[in-house]
Amino acid sequence: MTSAEQRVEEWLASFESALRAGDAEAAAELFAPESYWRDLVAFTWNITTVEGRDGVAGMLRETLEQAAPSGFALTGEPAEAGGVVEAWIRFETAAGRGTGHLRLKPEGAWTLLTTLRELKGFEESRPQGVEHTLNKGRLTWKEEKQRREEQDPYVVVIGGGQGGIALGARLRQLGVPALVVDKHARPGDQWRGRYKSLCLHDPVWYDHLPYLPFPANWPVFAPKDKIGDWLEMYTRVMEVPYWSSSTVRSATFDEAAQRWSVTVDRDDDTVELRPTQLVFATGMSGKANYPSFPGQDIFQGEQQHSSQHPGPEAYQGKRVVVVGSNNSAFDICGALWEHDADVTMVQRSSTHIVKSASLMDVGLGDLYSERAVAAGVTTDKADMIFASLPYRIMHEFQIPLYEEMASRDADFYARLEKAGFRHDWGADGSGLFMKYLRRGSGYYIDVGAAELVADGRVKLAHGQVDHLTEDAVVLDDGTALKADLVVYATGYGSMNGWVADIVDQATADKVGKVWGLGSDTPKDPGPWEGEQRNMWKPTQQENLWFHGGNLHQSRHYSLYLALQLKARYEGLPTPVYRLAESHHQG
Amino acid sequence: MTSAEQRVEEWLASFESALRAGDAEAAAELFAPESYWRDLVAFTWNITTVEGRDGVAGMLRETLEQAAPSGFALTGEPAEAGGVVEAWIRFETAAGRGTGHLRLKPEGAWTLLTTLRELKGFEESRPQGVEHTLNKGRLTWKEEKQRREEQDPYVVVIGGGQGGIALGARLRQLGVPALVVDKHARPGDQWRGRYKSLCLHDPVWYDHLPYLPFPANWPVFAPKDKIGDWLEMYTRVMEVPYWSSSTVRSATFDEAAQRWSVTVDRDDDTVELRPTQLVFATGMSGKANYPSFPGQDIFQGEQQHSSQHPGPEAYQGKRVVVVGSNNSAFDICGALWEHDADVTMVQRSSTHIVKSASLMDVGLGDLYSERAVAAGVTTDKADMIFASLPYRIMHEFQIPLYEEMASRDADFYARLEKAGFRHDWGADGSGLFMKYLRRGSGYYIDVGAAELVADGRVKLAHGQVDHLTEDAVVLDDGTALKADLVVYATGYGSMNGWVADIVDQATADKVGKVWGLGSDTPKDPGPWEGEQRNMWKPTQQENLWFHGGNLHQSRHYSLYLALQLKARYEGLPTPVYRLAESHHQG
Repeated sequence: MTSAEQRVEEWLASFESALRAGDAEAAAELFAPESYWRDLVAFTWNITTVEGRDGVAGMLRETLEQAAPSGFALTGEPAEAGGVVEAWIRFETAAGRGTGHLRLKPEGAWTLLTTLRELKGFEESRPQGVEHTLNKGRLTWKEEKQRREEQDPYVVVIGGGQGGIALGARLRQLGVPALVVDKHARPGDQWRGRYKSLCLHDPVWYDHLPYLPFPANWPVFAPKDKIGDWLEMYTRVMEVPYWSSSTVRSATFDEAAQRWSVTVDRDDDTVELRPTQLVFATGMSGKANYPSFPGQDIFQGEQQHSSQHPGPEAYQGKRVVVVGSNNSAFDICGALWEHDADVTMVQRSSTHIVKSASLMDVGLGDLYSERAVAAGVTTDKADMIFASLPYRIMHEFQIPLYEEMASRDADFYARLEKAGFRHDWGADGSGLFMKYLRRGSGYYIDVGAAELVADGRVKLAHGQVDHLTEDAVVLDDGTALKADLVVYATGYGSMNGWVADIVDQATADKVGKVWGLGSDTPKDPGPWEGEQRNMWKPTQQENLWFHGGNLHQSRHYSLYLALQLKARYEGLPTPVYRLAESHHQG
Repeated sequence: MTSAEQRVEEWLASFESALRAGDAEAAAELFAPESYWRDLVAFTWNITTVEGRDGVAGMLRETLEQAAPSGFALTGEPAEAGGVVEAWIRFETAAGRGTGHLRLKPEGAWTLLTTLRELKGFEESRPQGVEHTLNKGRLTWKEEKQRREEQDPYVVVIGGGQGGIALGARLRQLGVPALVVDKHARPGDQWRGRYKSLCLHDPVWYDHLPYLPFPANWPVFAPKDKIGDWLEMYTRVMEVPYWSSSTVRSATFDEAAQRWSVTVDRDDDTVELRPTQLVFATGMSGKANYPSFPGQDIFQGEQQHSSQHPGPEAYQGKRVVVVGSNNSAFDICGALWEHDADVTMVQRSSTHIVKSASLMDVGLGDLYSERAVAAGVTTDKADMIFASLPYRIMHEFQIPLYEEMASRDADFYARLEKAGFRHDWGADGSGLFMKYLRRGSGYYIDVGAAELVADGRVKLAHGQVDHLTEDAVVLDDGTALKADLVVYATGYGSMNGWVADIVDQATADKVGKVWGLGSDTPKDPGPWEGEQRNMWKPTQQENLWFHGGNLHQSRHYSLYLALQLKARYEGLPTPVYRLAESHHQG
């Protein structure tokens, strides 16, 4: 046995013995003074991180009896570096089986991640597909599927993009009657309908959906229509109950019955559903921020939010002003330039740009890449490593990566600066992923369009839009930009805006802002939350949930949300530890 | 180094040195007197097995200069059992890279398998999906796909079931312009249209398609509609160029131009294609044997070939006579019984039955099962192990397996016999898989219906059909079986029947019988062929190929067929060693 292995074994034995004794304080003493325990549904029926020995003790005092944890054991060989031992573990609770990750310092546990992986008695397994005894009246697979799709759903998921589909697949596999409702004609249209040149900015290893990974011949950066086809295929072969061309008009929670009334316009019908649980998977990029400027009513050209932009074909030779300087703005400017439009980008505030190749290599390469796969870092392992880093200190791990990118691409940033582009590295230099987690905006992963700005092929203007005239966008410094088309690449609002539209404003306010960490950086006001607000966990509104994010999050966190829903469907006790308060309305 | 490893290393070194010296005889001396070298396209541009030292020397004399093999090396640890060392190897030829398998006895190589895996300069790899430089006029993925689907195909594949689709996926991946043409409305309809209760009789581990394995939640025995959905989605996400609702009317080979003229009815149009290569993937079970009996014209009820049977729903309370006692007959009888039809099976000759569970466990368990996967036997490894057994001696490996099944299920066979069912184990006791390879018929994998015959719930009659009357099927012993419906579960003809229909009878005769080994057992006349007739390899008709078989064969052999087509598309030299003669016309 290596010394690292021995240290972990000893720590786990002491930890389990304290837990068995019901001694929260003794267990907490096994943590370092600066320490973090992140629990994904295993102990807390919540997604929460507690800090320090007091945090650990406080959590255990309230959860230990219910969780009744046991069976802590190492899985695989621990690794040691710089005095920190890293180990993979497994354990059980009264309700289920879990896996986790431990970082051990000489003074105790520094970080602990515990995740629920399956509920006892409800393990997933491969079905037989056929009974080998003939019986009169048995249903075929197709008949069984039809029956299932007609039954009353326990869960309604609003929105059938990657998030809703991934969750639907997990619920189907867990045997929870669910229905995904989406307004588009076909699964995947959420992607097909976006601008023509769009490709995923995240690489294939980051993007796998649950159960069915992309094949070895899948492109590193999948084009939008190909992703659309995959999602449609995935929905079908995973047997996700899915209503297309269906729009949720309203939803009301019946306190007495503890059920929702959900009104859906389906083709030409109006249907009333009565699910117990309601999940908003309407997308972080679901609700467009369409800005208001004086003169929008008199402008004679076209105006579009970036989400409505049909692609560049119709705008050859036209003058286009794109308001905004993040991902969508760059992608749209690039495609318009390729189609010989006269394009001006209006930068309203500084933007963080990283070159895709550098981000892939330096930022994601250790976890999600051909190299990572070759080193044994499977998608599941990468997800768990990512999840094991507490948000409180995640930026510390990120800053050096972006310093490396800054140095590697120094010429590129110098060219951008020379062209007048205002560039930043995030409030604390922690770069793209922290911006994504904190505010979901403020960056561009450069897949080529930054060079167009750097060398002036796409023109650059600065400032806020003051007003529009009949044929121009006028900035606050008086600059008038003549335009046939104005594209507002002005981003998206908090997901609780959908709750306001579909349920009511009071419920939206009660639930509060969705996304962000409370990092007290731009667009992510404090206080510190420790986890992403309202995502994948109970909210201030009973039986109302949010699901979404990029493909990585849709894949990984759909598991924990699905297990929470399954436990409730089966009537298991699910006492929530430390339900997050709401500090901001949107 | 283990002694097994050393023996293999020494053998490989001697072998390579003889090959490098161009010394066919010296290389042949390294084989045991009883020995088999099976080559899949690597040395011979053919699928062929040579036997004994003379066979090896003969093959090498003709292929060595062109193949220029080198780089023979062990991959992984050899295993030794009963004096035979088994080893996995790799090697190169002038044209490509290959892998193989060696069984070494003290007196020399007993079996050698060599397979071509990729062509040098045309290796498959993951595409980027996006260029990170913007260019005016670049095509999106969707535009590129449309362009590809409109180009003139180099290969036309007739038939878009699992075979055509798997081959189409490989050709697409290799960059060979190809088009799969199928008469059904959607990919997968080949399965959807079959009888309602049909599930695959092979387990999931045996059934994976290339590139995209079934997920972990896929049923062991997939229902037909689920397979239909998978094939449809696979076609889409693998970007297989595929024309649905399109029927090939005729095809003519233009000797001078070395191209085919293929006439296709597509929707309401007639389209003329000019491919260089034509592949029949019309299915072993493609061309129905519809028998002729006196009185068929006066019979007042319904008559169907098993492939036309719509399922049992319409036949509740009806009298049904099913002529035949193989897979389709049993499945149809079972489903009819479940729907309260009065069913009689007419057994015309003895049938081999194995219980599905026993076949899975004893017959396939070491190669294709949860157990095999846990033991490290991946699908690709299992395919290679299977391919490594020369057909000449394969029955010797099979016989003990069926002896074990006979003993395990002795009660079951006793019950069947008592009910008068005539059962056999194949001409030499080698069971199901040899029957499949030799004649593609004569068996039932029992998924429950055999018990209905054993206990009389499905009635059993024996003999040949003599004639039909207005309301009955009359057997040669005078037995009259009253019937409202007669189902002819009378199997399918040789695939060159399709060549007769689409090209002409002369070409069908020239090419000859498809399938079978020449084993001189019922329905597989000699002489010995050594490989399956005409499958996946050059035929007596230039530029005409056959592809098909079960999912395992569609997966594995599509690789070798695709590489042969790719090599020809790229203009590489492909001298065929020992093109098989045709001994039977159909």
